[in-house]
Order: sequence, then structure tokens, then C-alpha cells
Amino acid sequence: MTIPFAKYLDIEILPASQGMAHLQAVVRENHTNSFGTAHGGYLNALADTALEIASNSYDVPAVALTTSMQYHKAAPIGMALEIRAHETHRGRSTATYHIAITSEGSVIATFTGTVFRKQPTIK
Amino acid sequence: MTIPFAKYLDIEILPASQGMAHLQAVVRENHTNSFGTAHGGYLNALADTALEIASNSYDVPAVALTTSMQYHKAAPIGMALEIRAHETHRGRSTATYHIAITSEGSVIATFTGTVFRKQPTIK
Amino acid sequence: MTIPFAKYLDIEILPASQGMAHLQAVVRENHTNSFGTAHGGYLNALADTALEIASNSYDVPAVALTTSMQYHKAAPIGMALEIRAHETHRGRSTATYHIAITSEGSVIATFTGTVFRKQPTIK
Amino acid sequence: MTIPFAKYLDIEILPASQGMAHLQAVVRENHTNSFGTAHGGYLNALADTALEIASNSYDVPAVALTTSMQYHKAAPIGMALEIRAHETHRGRSTATYHIAITSEGSVIATFTGTVFRKQPTIK
Repeated sequence: MTIPFAKYLDIEILPASQGMAHLQAVVRENHTNSFGTAHGGYLNALADTALEIASNSYDVPAVALTTSMQYHKAAPIGMALEIRAHETHRGRSTATYHIAITSEGSVIATFTGTVFRKQPTIK
Repeated sequence: MTIPFAKYLDIEILPASQGMAHLQAVVRENHTNSFGTAHGGYLNALADTALEIASNSYDVPAVALTTSMQYHKAAPIGMALEIRAHETHRGRSTATYHIAITSEGSVIATFTGTVFRKQPTIK
Repeated sequence: MTIPFAKYLDIEILPASQGMAHLQAVVRENHTNSFGTAHGGYLNALADTALEIASNSYDVPAVALTTSMQYHKAAPIGMALEIRAHETHRGRSTATYHIAITSEGSVIATFTGTVFRKQPTIK
Repeated sequence: MTIPFAKYLDIEILPASQGMAHLQAVVRENHTNSFGTAHGGYLNALADTALEIASNSYDVPAVALTTSMQYHKAAPIGMALEIRAHETHRGRSTATYHIAITSEGSVIATFTGTVFRKQPTIK
């Protein structure tokens, strides 16, 4: 899977089982907010990329419907981040994934995403 | 206010009243997901930047605690987006903003963000 | 539409246009949390009932997929509440509604709900 | 802790460690929506009660700021539900809890809540 935005943000995509995702990233100056730490939108992009990968690991294309995010700690420039997604529920038409962004075991942010699964229309 | 991540994403910040924000952006190839339309994390970064600007328009630094986002329509490469934030409630320690991303009047995504306002500690 | 939980909570359902909802309720002692003000789950039930009514005002059954809620002010016993839902976006398979709970013009809580619309399967 | 709304909904509160909560409930006719299954607001009230208990297990009063909920499966009348909360992050002024509602190991709904912790003001 090619994800141009993930490449633009220097996100490293690691192997993961079906329904899961595992990413790594390092906070760079380009990724920061006005306080000099990781921008909320950057952290969201990490989680949303994990959602995209985990939810599209089946034969059915999946697109995000709704996401929610909780910010726990600021991530300074140079901090290495781990992003892991797991599947909470998968039905025919929708599925939900929980994602955690951590650094050395400390939780930086948490994220929940629900996707729509585009089942082929019966003709 | 200098926001490196907003600059990296080519977000244009327009003048707005206190408690509000108004941004413009155009979807580029670098901003896309595996389906070739705007990445969810890119759209979130637009909204989160509006949240950052609106909530920091007072004398008190504000940081995002939680955000939620709803995706309504895919945004293809070249689409011009308008992002507008307004303040729903502002208390001493927290405040909430609602944000809409539209294109020619059509709603692409909606977002709600709640921030923590870092009041100076009494010494 | 008969909604037993809404009846159990003494929620008054007023007429509204398609895609919208308008409810009224008064906070009672039975509806309170450990601080003696309206329980978060009670306020959510008001909003969720508005979501149920607005999203089921078409010929297609709709069920909640995800909701998010922001609490702005405590609602004491005896406070009269107005609950209004409007449709932000409606597609074939999903739709999103924004809901506000107010009291005399003051915003007590805001809510966003996304539903799945159970289109008949083609046989 | 006395929670009138939890009592009104027949929620059983079980012992739990600090920062956690464990509840049980059975879906009754009074708790249903127009489809005859557990109302979204009822399920939210279960989760929100767990949030209230877990977040108030310290010496600092805590009130909900924002919550988000994902509905995975309908819960019919008579279904026995387990509700468990755990603490994802606790800071000085805010904390976040993740809550799952299950029935015999199957996930019915998931919930995330962020609270404001009312630290005593320095006089």
C-alpha cells in the first residue's frame, strides 16, 4: 500500500498481522505546533495512518467515518514514537480500531477510529 | 503565531476575530491516502490548526485535550478547502470549538476540539 | 415512534421537520450524579434520543455507530432543558447529526452522532 | 458514593481498585430504544457511571469534560452486561479512562472519557 501523506511525514510502516498496524516515527521540527512540540494534527496523522493500514488489511476497501483522539503528553522534537493499532470489532459494513502512540512505554496519545467497509454492490 | 506543521502543509492562515479561525488550503498529491484523496490525518491537521489558532487568541496558552472528527466526503487532489472555527464554550480552565471543513459550500468534514487553558499558577 | 427509555426519563418529544429533532426535559433527583447535578449519562440519553428521532425520520432504519459529547456546564435539579438536533450530512449508508442541549440560551452540552442507515439488501 | 441515576437504572456497582471500576447491569424493557434493544443513552449511562466511579477514586473531585462512544452490537432485553473501566492516563488537572461494555466476552460497546480534576485553589 502506498500512502503519499505517510511518506511526506516520514512515517515508517512495519509488518503487522491482519487487522493490526505497527508504525514508527520521530518528531521533527516540521511536525511541530506553536509551542515547539508535536502538532496535534501530526500525531493524528500517525494514528490515522495506522487506522488506514489495519482496516485495509482485508479484501474490502475501508474509509474512516469518525475518529476521536485524546492527548496525554507533549512530544518534543527528536522523540521516537511507536504507533500500534488493534481491531476492537469488525462487522460486515463497519469496524472499529483502537490505537496508542507511545514513547518508551509512556502513553503520548490514544485514538479510536471507526471505518466504513465498502462491500461490493450486488448487481 | 508560527506553526511549522501548518507551514509544511501549505495552510494559509487568514485574519479572524478572537475565539475564531479561518484557514484555506488546497489538497496536493503529498496530502493523499492510498485511495488518492485527502488523507484523514491531513484533514485533521487543517482542523487542529484552526483549533490551535482560535483557542490561543486570548492571553492564556491553550493545548488540545481531546478532539473528534467526522468525515463526510472524499476531497480529491486540487480541491480548495475552507476551514472555519468558532467557540462553543469558554470557561476558566477549558474551552470547546466546533470546526467545519467545506468546499464551495459542501461539508467535507466536521471536528470538535476541547482544550486545556494553562492559567498561571498563583504563587 | 415509541421509545421506552425516553418515556422512563420523562423526555418530551416535540414536533420537528425531517432530519431534525426537538425535545424538552427537566432535571429530576433521579437523573443526578454523586454531585447532585444532571448525570452525564442522563444528558447523553437526551442527546441520543434526539439523534434517534432525527436519523429515523426517513424510510430507512438508522442506528448509532459512534457519538461524542462535550460537557460545558453542570445542570442542577429543576433546570429545564431544550434539546435540538440538526442534520450535518446524510449519505446513502451513513449520516451525521449535531445536537445542542441548552437552558435559557446557555449551552449545557454538545453532541455529535453518526448513524448507519440500514438500506434494504438487493435480493 | 451515592449515584441516584445509577440506582434509577438498576446498575450494580462492584468493588474495584483505585482508578478502575466494575459494574453489572441487565437490559430491561425500560432501557430500550424504538427497536426494542438497549438505548444508546442507557449504554452510555453505564459507561459514564464507570467513568464517574473510576475518576473519583482519588481525593480530587473529577467531572467529565468529553466522552466518545462506539456501538458494536445491539443488546436485547435480558442481556447481562459487564462494564469495566481502566485508567489510561492521569495528570494533575485531567485524566482519561477507557471503558468496555461486554456480554459473555463479546464487546457490545466501547467508550473513552476525559475528566477535569478540580484541584483545590491555592488561597
